[in-house]
This record gives sequence, C-alpha cells and structure tokens, in this order.
Amino acid sequence: MSPDLAAIRSAHDRIRPHIHRTPVLTSARFDTACGGNLFFKTENFQKAGAFKSRGAVNAVFSLDAATAARGVATHSSGNHAAALARAARLRGIPAHIVMPTNSSQAKVRAVEGYGGRLTFCEPTQAAREATCARVIAETGATLVHPYENEAVIAGQGTAVIELLEDAPGLDVVLAPVGGGGLLAGTAIAAKALASRIQIVATEPAEAADTYRSFRAGHIISLTQTTTIADGLRTTIGRPNFEIMRRLVDDVVIVSEEAIVAAMRAIWETLKIVVEPSGAVPYAAVLEGKVNIAGRRAGLILSGGNVDLDALPWVAKG
Amino acid sequence: MSPDLAAIRSAHDRIRPHIHRTPVLTSARFDTACGGNLFFKTENFQKAGAFKSRGAVNAVFSLDAATAARGVATHSSGNHAAALARAARLRGIPAHIVMPTNSSQAKVRAVEGYGGRLTFCEPTQAAREATCARVIAETGATLVHPYENEAVIAGQGTAVIELLEDAPGLDVVLAPVGGGGLLAGTAIAAKALASRIQIVATEPAEAADTYRSFRAGHIISLTQTTTIADGLRTTIGRPNFEIMRRLVDDVVIVSEEAIVAAMRAIWETLKIVVEPSGAVPYAAVLEGKVNIAGRRAGLILSGGNVDLDALPWVAKG
Repeated sequence: MSPDLAAIRSAHDRIRPHIHRTPVLTSARFDTACGGNLFFKTENFQKAGAFKSRGAVNAVFSLDAATAARGVATHSSGNHAAALARAARLRGIPAHIVMPTNSSQAKVRAVEGYGGRLTFCEPTQAAREATCARVIAETGATLVHPYENEAVIAGQGTAVIELLEDAPGLDVVLAPVGGGGLLAGTAIAAKALASRIQIVATEPAEAADTYRSFRAGHIISLTQTTTIADGLRTTIGRPNFEIMRRLVDDVVIVSEEAIVAAMRAIWETLKIVVEPSGAVPYAAVLEGKVNIAGRRAGLILSGGNVDLDALPWVAKG
Repeated sequence: MSPDLAAIRSAHDRIRPHIHRTPVLTSARFDTACGGNLFFKTENFQKAGAFKSRGAVNAVFSLDAATAARGVATHSSGNHAAALARAARLRGIPAHIVMPTNSSQAKVRAVEGYGGRLTFCEPTQAAREATCARVIAETGATLVHPYENEAVIAGQGTAVIELLEDAPGLDVVLAPVGGGGLLAGTAIAAKALASRIQIVATEPAEAADTYRSFRAGHIISLTQTTTIADGLRTTIGRPNFEIMRRLVDDVVIVSEEAIVAAMRAIWETLKIVVEPSGAVPYAAVLEGKVNIAGRRAGLILSGGNVDLDALPWVAKG
C-alpha cells in the first residue's frame, strides 16, 4: 500500500480536471518573524475545502466501470466524507457515507450538498466500522478508507508536487499528521523529487500518537483527545506508519495555545480562513520546534472548513 | 482632478514594484446561487490589507524629490493611514498621520508598524482637519488626501485593469463607495477600456449619502452613521461625485444584515478574510439589487482588515 512517485504522477494526471491547483502564499511579515522563508500551500482553497479532495477523486476515478457503478462507501465525520461524496457525484455513482450522530451540522450539510447518501451511527469507532461494513454488504460499494488506501495516499501526494514546482529549492516540508495519508504521500513524492528535503510531521501534543509511535518504533494508539485540531484526532494508519518510518525525518508536537495563535496569525496576516488542523505546521514554527532560520520551508495548510460560530479565540457567551 | 486612462496606466507602471497583483477568485457555489458568473478581485490580499496601497504608493512616488523629502501627511482612522505610512517608508520619507483618539488599537499598531509618525486628535472632522493642517504647516509635508486626490484616484483605478485582464468580457463591475476614490478610478478605467461595462456603486443603506446624492444631482452629506462597513462611513468627495455622475450607471444600497451575511458567506465559501466594507458588493448580489442572471460580474473586495475579536456574527459575551 505504498505508491511510488510514478503512481503519484498518474494520480495527478487523473485528478487534475477535478481539483484546484491551489496557490502558494508567502508573507514578508512571517518571514521576518522567523528568519526564514515560508511557503504556504493553500489547500484550504481546495475543492470541498481540503486536500482530501485529491485522494478521494483519485480513488473514485481509479475504479473500473463495473466496480464504480456499485458506488463507494466510507465512514468519516470530517473532510473526507464531503470530498468522497463530491468525487462520486463527479463520476455519477453513489457515495454511502456513515457519520456518527454527533457530527457537526455543517459537515452533514456538506455531504448532503454533494448528494452523499447518509447513514448515521453511534459515535464509536466500533459502530462506525460495523455500520459501514453493513452498508457495503448491502450495496456492493467499494470502501474508500480515509487514509489506509493506496489511491488516497497517492492523491494526497500530489499537493507537494505542486508546492515544489511553485517554491523550488525547499529545505524542509511541514505537514500535519492525523491518519497519515497526507504525510505519507507528501514524504514519498518529496523524497523522490529531492532526497535532501527534510520532511517533518507536525502534531498536536494533545493527540501525540504519531510522535510516540515514531519514537517507540511501533504504533501506540491514540486514546481520547479533545485537541482543537479535529482533523488530527486519529491514530496513524499502519501502512502510513511504515512509510513514515522510512521517509519522515522527525515528528514534532505543538501546544493547543500555539495552534490557536497560529490559526489567528494566518487569518490576520495571510487573510485566509484555515481550520485548526491546517494551522498546526505554522504552530510548530511559532513554538520553535523546527529549525527555520535561513531555510526555505513549505507548509501544507490542509483545509479551511471551520465553524465560524465557534472560533477558538472567542469567549463563549 | 479627473485622471484619464493614460494616467491610470502610468500609475500602474509606477506602483507595480510595490504592490501585489491580487488574484481573481470564483466560486461554482456562488455562481449557481445567483445564476451568473462572479469574479472577485481580492484586494484583501493587497499590501497593508487593502486597495488603499495602490493610491498611496502612486501619490508618494509621483512627488518630485524635493517635495517628497519634506514628507507626506494625512488624517485617517482607517486603511489609508497604514497604506500611506507604508508607501512613505518605501520611499524613505516621513509620513505624518493624524488619527482620532478613538481609533482602534489594531489600526494604530499598523501605522506604527510601518513607521508612521502619529499625532492624535479629538474624534471630530474639524479637529482632524485642523490638526492635519497644523502638522503640514510645521513640517512642510504634502497632504495626501484619502480620496480627493488625483494620484490617489489614478492608483485605485489600477485594480480594475487587472480584473478585466483576468476576467475578460465582464458585463458589470460592482465597487463599494465611501469617499469615492476607488469608485471614480474604477469607473474611469473600466469605461475607457470597454464602454459597454456597467458600473454599479454599492453602499450601506445606513450610509446612503452617495445613493441620495446620485439621485438628487448634488452632494448630500452623510450625517452620523454606525454602519458595520466602517470603511464607508464617509461622504463622497466632490471631484469623485462629478466623475461618478458622468460614468457610473447606478448606486444601490444594502442592509446591515446583508453585509454580515455576505461577509460570512465569503469567509465560508471563498475561505478568505474580508472586512465588512469589502463584502458590500456581494451583499448587493445577495439582496438582488443588481441584475446578475446570465451575466459576468466583477466584484472588488476592497480589504481584509478586521478585528477578529469583534466579528459581527458572534454574540458579545
């Protein structure tokens, strides 16, 4: 389940008609503050608001016609759900989305807006998996796992290809890590294109499963977490962990305060809306967890889907 | 005080090294909702966070060396103050900025951050003008008025040149109107480039001086207003009004509710941070004040400087 650069390039060709080539932004103010040069890959501008559209489109359009006709399925409370519903609609096939009953209304509406067929379940991992298995048994749909899926990993790896084209000569790339699909795809593509590039995974200290797993040499599952970076409340997938052990140079963890400060600084200075998970790489810069001085760093802003009624710097009324 | 297209093109050449060419964004969701094609010129990404940098840089760099050496001055509580301070620093000359004592801390910090020399005054128009006149008498600085200034108007007119290059064949351009510098420059440039383009000024109903003046045929000054669109709490300037009578097709007004809804929709869907004034053109689309169906419309998002601690959809704690 480890795609190579050729697979990621094929994915890029396959998905290009259906995704945005997102811009790379810079800020003189940020560069002055950190003493390096930062290049922000703005996947918050991606279709459905997150990099997840890359992997979902690649997975859906990689299926042969007969398999595709039976539809796709997943369980997700986040950006993958909307991205998969959108990708399926583009191909004209059904998407069966299992969501926990405590999913945010905004996420539910997004899936509905793309024509996804919703099944709700109890908000536990066991219920999600059992419900999804039942839906698949009933429909013959193909499971598109949010991150333990080779086509998904290959799709996520396309973002860093664009980043390296638009910001040549990077010394380091910072990516957030949750299930590890983005991290794995990024590491494969970047190391194949320029082996000297350092790949650093960035993770909330409140959800430090990857940090601990990387140091232990085996996966240590995440227990309950309330990190504000809701996209990263996931234990890294097994194939992704193996890719990461081979290709990722370091994992650093950041505080909740730094995530909020980074998110706010990005809104104020870059004038763009990013979600907490997307601000985690810049939080690592703010907390000095990565050596940036005199270096060129690429940061993947993973998404921009945020509840404007629940901003972290606003006191609850 | 009415620049022509040649003056605006000269301004463009003069300011190009010092400003961003801001992107033009589109949204399939917005287009579906309104039945037309919307093209957003994102001046929220402009240097110092607003289109004001265009006019300020043009005014500062149009001065001869001896005049420039004595510095520039203005009175402003808003984006023009920061933009002028920045432009002066780029030329290595002093900027004297008169601000009312009730200016927001964020605006004061922005001016200080660009090295502006601050003088505070009572928060009345008379005090602002008297204080500014005194500073000019003491220093020999040149007044750069925020909108009653030919070089400023020419600078503001450069944004629509870029918009028309990136979004050819527009049927209508919507711009917000406060003092009218952006509107005047936009109308001159757009009508000279394509006389069939309709120019529509958009204004808060709570600050409808331009709307009433346009219909009366003479300027009706704005009395006190508390519109959320703080950049538009200004009576249109006299030269700008004359330009507007000649070249602008219509003025429409929008409710406060529509401004907040438009601002929020832009944040959620385009994933960008715009200030209330910048959302006024889209508010006109949302309220059906402009015929968009089947047409191509350019909207100038004038700026992105907003207090993240005082968002209009957040109940005060």
